[in-house]
Amino acid sequence: MTGGQRGPDLGVCYYPEQWPEEKWAEDAARMVVLGLTWVRVAEFAWALIEPEPGRFDWGWLDRAVETLGNAGLKVIMSTPTAAPPKWLVDLYPEILPVGADGHVRKFGARRHYCFSSPVYRREAARIATALAERYGRNPHVHAWQIDNEYGDHDTVHSYSPAAEAAFRDWLRARHGTVEALNEAWGTAFWSMLYTDFAQVQLPNQLVEEPSPTHLVDYLRFSSDQVVSFNRMQAEILRRLSPGRPITHNFMNQNTDFDHHRLGQDIDVASWDVYPLGNLIHGRLPEALKQRHLRTGDPDQPGFNHDLYRGVGRGRVWVMEQQPGPVNWAAQNVAPMDGMVRLWSWLAFAHGCEMVSYFRWRQAPFAQEQFHTGLLLPDSTPDQAFHEVAQVAEEMRAMPEMGPRGRAEVALVLDYASRWALAALPQGRNFNPSHHALDFYAALRRHGVDLDIIGPETDLTGYRLVVAPDLVIVPEGFVQRLAASGAKAVFGPRSGSKTADMHIPDGLPGGPLRDLIDVRVTRVESLPDWQVETAAMGNRRVTLRRWRETVETGDGVLARFEGGYREGAPAVVGNDRARYLAGLPDAEGLGLVLTDALDWAGVAHLPDLGDLRLARRGGVTFAFNFGPEAVQLAAPEGARFVLGGPVLDPAGVAAWV
Amino acid sequence: MTGGQRGPDLGVCYYPEQWPEEKWAEDAARMVVLGLTWVRVAEFAWALIEPEPGRFDWGWLDRAVETLGNAGLKVIMSTPTAAPPKWLVDLYPEILPVGADGHVRKFGARRHYCFSSPVYRREAARIATALAERYGRNPHVHAWQIDNEYGDHDTVHSYSPAAEAAFRDWLRARHGTVEALNEAWGTAFWSMLYTDFAQVQLPNQLVEEPSPTHLVDYLRFSSDQVVSFNRMQAEILRRLSPGRPITHNFMNQNTDFDHHRLGQDIDVASWDVYPLGNLIHGRLPEALKQRHLRTGDPDQPGFNHDLYRGVGRGRVWVMEQQPGPVNWAAQNVAPMDGMVRLWSWLAFAHGCEMVSYFRWRQAPFAQEQFHTGLLLPDSTPDQAFHEVAQVAEEMRAMPEMGPRGRAEVALVLDYASRWALAALPQGRNFNPSHHALDFYAALRRHGVDLDIIGPETDLTGYRLVVAPDLVIVPEGFVQRLAASGAKAVFGPRSGSKTADMHIPDGLPGGPLRDLIDVRVTRVESLPDWQVETAAMGNRRVTLRRWRETVETGDGVLARFEGGYREGAPAVVGNDRARYLAGLPDAEGLGLVLTDALDWAGVAHLPDLGDLRLARRGGVTFAFNFGPEAVQLAAPEGARFVLGGPVLDPAGVAAWV
Amino acid sequence: MTGGQRGPDLGVCYYPEQWPEEKWAEDAARMVVLGLTWVRVAEFAWALIEPEPGRFDWGWLDRAVETLGNAGLKVIMSTPTAAPPKWLVDLYPEILPVGADGHVRKFGARRHYCFSSPVYRREAARIATALAERYGRNPHVHAWQIDNEYGDHDTVHSYSPAAEAAFRDWLRARHGTVEALNEAWGTAFWSMLYTDFAQVQLPNQLVEEPSPTHLVDYLRFSSDQVVSFNRMQAEILRRLSPGRPITHNFMNQNTDFDHHRLGQDIDVASWDVYPLGNLIHGRLPEALKQRHLRTGDPDQPGFNHDLYRGVGRGRVWVMEQQPGPVNWAAQNVAPMDGMVRLWSWLAFAHGCEMVSYFRWRQAPFAQEQFHTGLLLPDSTPDQAFHEVAQVAEEMRAMPEMGPRGRAEVALVLDYASRWALAALPQGRNFNPSHHALDFYAALRRHGVDLDIIGPETDLTGYRLVVAPDLVIVPEGFVQRLAASGAKAVFGPRSGSKTADMHIPDGLPGGPLRDLIDVRVTRVESLPDWQVETAAMGNRRVTLRRWRETVETGDGVLARFEGGYREGAPAVVGNDRARYLAGLPDAEGLGLVLTDALDWAGVAHLPDLGDLRLARRGGVTFAFNFGPEAVQLAAPEGARFVLGGPVLDPAGVAAWV
Repeated sequence: MTGGQRGPDLGVCYYPEQWPEEKWAEDAARMVVLGLTWVRVAEFAWALIEPEPGRFDWGWLDRAVETLGNAGLKVIMSTPTAAPPKWLVDLYPEILPVGADGHVRKFGARRHYCFSSPVYRREAARIATALAERYGRNPHVHAWQIDNEYGDHDTVHSYSPAAEAAFRDWLRARHGTVEALNEAWGTAFWSMLYTDFAQVQLPNQLVEEPSPTHLVDYLRFSSDQVVSFNRMQAEILRRLSPGRPITHNFMNQNTDFDHHRLGQDIDVASWDVYPLGNLIHGRLPEALKQRHLRTGDPDQPGFNHDLYRGVGRGRVWVMEQQPGPVNWAAQNVAPMDGMVRLWSWLAFAHGCEMVSYFRWRQAPFAQEQFHTGLLLPDSTPDQAFHEVAQVAEEMRAMPEMGPRGRAEVALVLDYASRWALAALPQGRNFNPSHHALDFYAALRRHGVDLDIIGPETDLTGYRLVVAPDLVIVPEGFVQRLAASGAKAVFGPRSGSKTADMHIPDGLPGGPLRDLIDVRVTRVESLPDWQVETAAMGNRRVTLRRWRETVETGDGVLARFEGGYREGAPAVVGNDRARYLAGLPDAEGLGLVLTDALDWAGVAHLPDLGDLRLARRGGVTFAFNFGPEAVQLAAPEGARFVLGGPVLDPAGVAAWV
Repeated sequence: MTGGQRGPDLGVCYYPEQWPEEKWAEDAARMVVLGLTWVRVAEFAWALIEPEPGRFDWGWLDRAVETLGNAGLKVIMSTPTAAPPKWLVDLYPEILPVGADGHVRKFGARRHYCFSSPVYRREAARIATALAERYGRNPHVHAWQIDNEYGDHDTVHSYSPAAEAAFRDWLRARHGTVEALNEAWGTAFWSMLYTDFAQVQLPNQLVEEPSPTHLVDYLRFSSDQVVSFNRMQAEILRRLSPGRPITHNFMNQNTDFDHHRLGQDIDVASWDVYPLGNLIHGRLPEALKQRHLRTGDPDQPGFNHDLYRGVGRGRVWVMEQQPGPVNWAAQNVAPMDGMVRLWSWLAFAHGCEMVSYFRWRQAPFAQEQFHTGLLLPDSTPDQAFHEVAQVAEEMRAMPEMGPRGRAEVALVLDYASRWALAALPQGRNFNPSHHALDFYAALRRHGVDLDIIGPETDLTGYRLVVAPDLVIVPEGFVQRLAASGAKAVFGPRSGSKTADMHIPDGLPGGPLRDLIDVRVTRVESLPDWQVETAAMGNRRVTLRRWRETVETGDGVLARFEGGYREGAPAVVGNDRARYLAGLPDAEGLGLVLTDALDWAGVAHLPDLGDLRLARRGGVTFAFNFGPEAVQLAAPEGARFVLGGPVLDPAGVAAWV
Repeated sequence: MTGGQRGPDLGVCYYPEQWPEEKWAEDAARMVVLGLTWVRVAEFAWALIEPEPGRFDWGWLDRAVETLGNAGLKVIMSTPTAAPPKWLVDLYPEILPVGADGHVRKFGARRHYCFSSPVYRREAARIATALAERYGRNPHVHAWQIDNEYGDHDTVHSYSPAAEAAFRDWLRARHGTVEALNEAWGTAFWSMLYTDFAQVQLPNQLVEEPSPTHLVDYLRFSSDQVVSFNRMQAEILRRLSPGRPITHNFMNQNTDFDHHRLGQDIDVASWDVYPLGNLIHGRLPEALKQRHLRTGDPDQPGFNHDLYRGVGRGRVWVMEQQPGPVNWAAQNVAPMDGMVRLWSWLAFAHGCEMVSYFRWRQAPFAQEQFHTGLLLPDSTPDQAFHEVAQVAEEMRAMPEMGPRGRAEVALVLDYASRWALAALPQGRNFNPSHHALDFYAALRRHGVDLDIIGPETDLTGYRLVVAPDLVIVPEGFVQRLAASGAKAVFGPRSGSKTADMHIPDGLPGGPLRDLIDVRVTRVESLPDWQVETAAMGNRRVTLRRWRETVETGDGVLARFEGGYREGAPAVVGNDRARYLAGLPDAEGLGLVLTDALDWAGVAHLPDLGDLRLARRGGVTFAFNFGPEAVQLAAPEGARFVLGGPVLDPAGVAAWV
């Protein structure tokens, strides 16, 4: 889980096909002067590479690679499968995805393919092979990106005939017999029995919700289709382009496929960092959205750096760093000047090896013309250009940071559990991606570094493992946790479903009962306006949206107050594990989790407010996400290698 | 309209097909020990009874009935037509319903059939006949339920080819000639004339709203399809299972079909009582939702007991009583401990003969696994089990209650009027089901018992008839009302449409003008934030959402204030009837309706707040729906037969 | 741009086909007595004129025209193409429009046709020809209306096969070659290249948004289809009914087609005035909606009078004036008594030649039965009848008003710019129709009369030209503006796109840089709750929803305050033009625009609050849209020709 073994480097996303060829050499030269090392190309270039079926036009891309490489840049070549050409769609209309409304989704943008289409898989393999054969051993090509942002535009889930056929095969493989499927799905419930896999349909357009197992099986199947589609390309690239690392650029917060599993098939995980749109659409209450309007949620980028560092088994890149206002959010706000620099250093502090900006020059046409770049459309530098120049200069002065070490605290993010919650949220205001970030933020506000891990990740060495929503506890997890010696905190609903989406024998808690005595006899979801409170010693924790009634023989650390089941346990625990019978709000999580840090022997700081600290190797970084200057409490003897003890808004400092 | 001639009894919903056969006998024995008498089975068992076309597997159900019956339970057998098997859907895809979006709604949950499909009617008759032949004279089978919750998941309205064909036949029968249809629908309005019934289409996916008469005819037709589908099954059961009462379990608040009419074809009306989800989705302002979060709207269950007592012509059961948190609401909150007992006694107080809990044991799989039962999934008792035990014990100590007598006050609920309002709401915030409950609650808060009746119900004996929204006044209603001697209060919009959805000759008020001189010259719908006020003597009534200008030669009891048409009548009346020219809010309705009670000579109490009283025979019941204990003002000499004079939250008391 | 050369007259919309023939003569006589001159007929009468294919039933309409004409009324005859008969739809189902969801929109209301259907164009021409041949030279027919309310019910945009075919032709004509289309649409962006026009599809049901140029081309195409459909009918009428002016009744606020262009093909622009529904759905904050609940937005009717006066090149009618509550808004409120009179005089003050009321008598059936008229359904006068009588009497006493002169201030409304903003709003809360009305209102609140003009309108004679959102600056506009000598104020985003929806070379500002030195280097959209402020001298302007960073060598009139880019220009200008780098709110616009009025030498008054003034010829009118009486500050020596110096709510006065 350590990160940052190579680099740090800077890079950029570049689209030679969008600019006159006479600009390429100058662009490349300016990139190098700016301090960039990497350049990603070609992820949407299929129709330009193969303008007609079987007729390839390699010339322009050959020359672009040559130009960029000769300037001294390392090229990240992409397979262009995120956007099949119109002629391909016209030849094989069956490759188009079908929406949950049963309508075919049309050509004219991107990601217009169904992962289950055998024809599209064949064609994707064909174009990936062609690219890999052409550039696999090109000396300028140093890495590969497969496809682009799987899951964008809600494209993991297709309801096409191809998906239906593949789903039936998948079910056959998973359940073996239709009787086993009936048992797993509980089809006796509403006379939903099947006598043949061929009877099963995709779970859209029903009269009422399907069996949650039917739905979760479909979500798992859809994830597996992405993973196998990606693996198919990875195998081609490995064979034809040996020694070049393979990456995919993930979209943060997307949970439509299992990023941990896909991560097994690539060498470096990269992700696309757009904090301001995430703020607008994100978890924070309005007052905090206002406070952080131009800095973004202080914890959203860090969360994802820590997540993808795990997905990439230690290796993480930023493939697309927001350089200014973008185009896709409900509102597209400008970052405060300095934030591009801050986000860049934040990435390095969290172990990223490389930060690549999207994009070199703002496009004056097509869908994303409001998306800024390092250059304005007229090729003059935009604000980010100057900030990147500053980062490049600062990097030269920065001592060797060393790798980001394993953290003392791990937070578990399990995609299968997320699908379980999506299938049975039980409250329309139940939003697990917000909850996980809330847990993470509560720890980060107290200066704690974390790893974000999958449920299969080795737990050795952690002092504390936090599982906000591990609904389905994988086989062996409890044993590995016990063996690791780590203490654990489980959020509500942990252990509440089996792999087949049943309530476990012996009630929720399920396999966790080997660690902690919890038997959940009642759960309830609550409207946003309902506030529950619990007394934890002489402090009060407020909880919202979810409450459980738990029976335990272990200790009770906090008890509910108020007119309903007063005194019932709100937090229970023993010397190995703690369990939360509700969802504390931000302040409550601060109380509960700092108490757990003390218990686990993990050092922490008083609430940092808008400040965030991150340690990499021997260097400690500080970042100010707030509107006021902050006086840093650097330890005595600290030597500043970046900035100084007073941190302005959007300011960055580092000391050793 | 009297209720409670038999029982009271307790019962439960049980699904032998969902549990291993070895559990059945123990389950049955525990039911009996708990004090249950009735058990409902098989309403979703078609695929288990007939796993393949024409091959019946009766064995398991025979044994289940035998086991339950031998333990001493009376079985309510169900026709399983709410969930046709997959093989039937595959054989006859045309039985599936079609949504308003034109898409076929798929198999995979329940209620996946179109009421108009002749094939499905034939198949439903076939399976009902098979059940009735098998169990019609079984000594353990004491009653029948037909289908399950007509109207759930918005399934009354189908837009299938079968529905279109049936609609044309229905129109031919209703209008006789296409000229009459043109006249009724006002097709001259936008050149919408028809020359043949075969030209008429279902009123979905139009460019703009259809003629309201087109829409209302479709709503009536759809209701008639449900009624005739049910009647078809009722006739089979009557023929093959003589002497067993037939019921259907209605969903409260559903107004997609005419419950009064369907009630004519059954022997007992039953309904499914889920107060907490109804609170979340219901009429109360947020402050009251918070107050009653775990007790539910104090008037929603009573309203429906009183309604279905009328629908069942005096005989009403609770078929499914919420036992704890459920699964289907926006949020699913836990009832306060004691509420299951309270709701049970409330049902008996309102004349129910039987209260059956849904369900015996919480299912650990499939769609409703968050729906609690009397037992937890591991067969240990959940909270409701203990409360039911208490009710059973209290029932044994309760003196004979006698029947629930006819009330002095009747509230009219007319389904055809609701469809009229749905077709022409005239304000997007106009919600007649909320209004009717508001009228009911205002009376109940003052201790008044009510009957809820249909527009065809005999009015003899009532002192006061309240019609919150009798838009279409049926022929003869005014004459029967006059003959009854009852005084009447009409809400706004009463008498505002003819049966063909026209404005009556002589303007709204229409047939009511034989009772009261109202000529409505203007109506207006108002945004939620607009408050109108009226002076009623020296008291002020606030009104919202709807206001009318009324001309009258009768008395004016309240006059509008403010800058618009100051002094215009807000409440008018003579010695027989009163008419409201707007929608008072809760407090205003309290003023207007208690004044009407005085006028009609109906005794009432000061505002009871969270307390509700209900009388059955000689017993008076008291229920506390609030968060604080209440001191009861029982009459002198009252003898408590349940509880005592101090009523805790969720408390129940009764005296004679 | 002058208006009101003829009339003023009063009129009414009448539907003989909806009433028994024996009522016609009496109705006509009452119209004349009331003071009406014009009567519109037949716009929904196709099925009554041609009940079967090719069989015409002219008798009833002949007699109706004769009856009305003989009574002394001038008939406005209509082509009935807004509602084709069922038999036509059954013969040619392909004439039905297709929604963006891909579903055919069904018969049963109105506007159920696709503008691109060649069959429907042929049939529309056939019925228009038949009407024109029958009535083109009828002495009672004095004018024509073509169709009815183009764009109502979202019917400009159809996604039918006919539309797709026509779109391809349109693209071929616009772009010439597919290479040019690829260049314009920027298809290199996401591999969206086309090799043949036949590959292009309509921009619905894509995976993600299409190229904005693809979308804007579709919006332009759709507008052109309306214009050519209308022109086709206009040519028939001109040929067969010489000397009769042709009109179309526009729906205010509809921007789905270019009203200026359509206006070129008609003789008089008319529009339909429904202020109260517009208030409910409109721009004002809730407090002002409450204040104007029964008077409507004080500026919405004036805006549209001024707009359609321009569209009609000086000639404007009100074809449908709201007479009381209507039926189509979210809530349908009653106007304060007096408002129908106020709106009538407001229309005349803004240069209207004729005000026609919709409708003579409220229909007691079909879709619009809640829409009031001059008469109630029982033929007794409704409130509006009396107000119209008063207007008619007052008109007789009014001195000759003369034409409405050219205003000193013009506001530019460019439909192509609106489509540009619809295609790339960049903020979900960006609503240009609200912004334009905000600019207009800020000027009107200070007593300024305006013309609303298209981008091709002659600018000669204006002192100030205000362009709130001229995103695409048409060729020659800047030159014409400079030549006119008018000063100009441009809202943000002006000049930000080329005709092909690209960012202009040299960045936004684009062609405006020939007038003013603005180079927009950054734009951002902001959430509703975000407030930016700027200092303008010692006054503070608050801005919302949109902010830009502008580089300029010209003067800076206001500078942003606060933590982000403090001191950056908020308003810049030179002696010819000013540019706003954000969207001031109502108060801020008052400051910015009155300052501009001073600069341009246009006289203005202090904020008028609820009062509005309008000048026509030598007459000055005053209108009170507020809830309190207002004391007028008429100039010394003013002689009142209507009302007096104290203006009650809904009051009107006029002086010379």
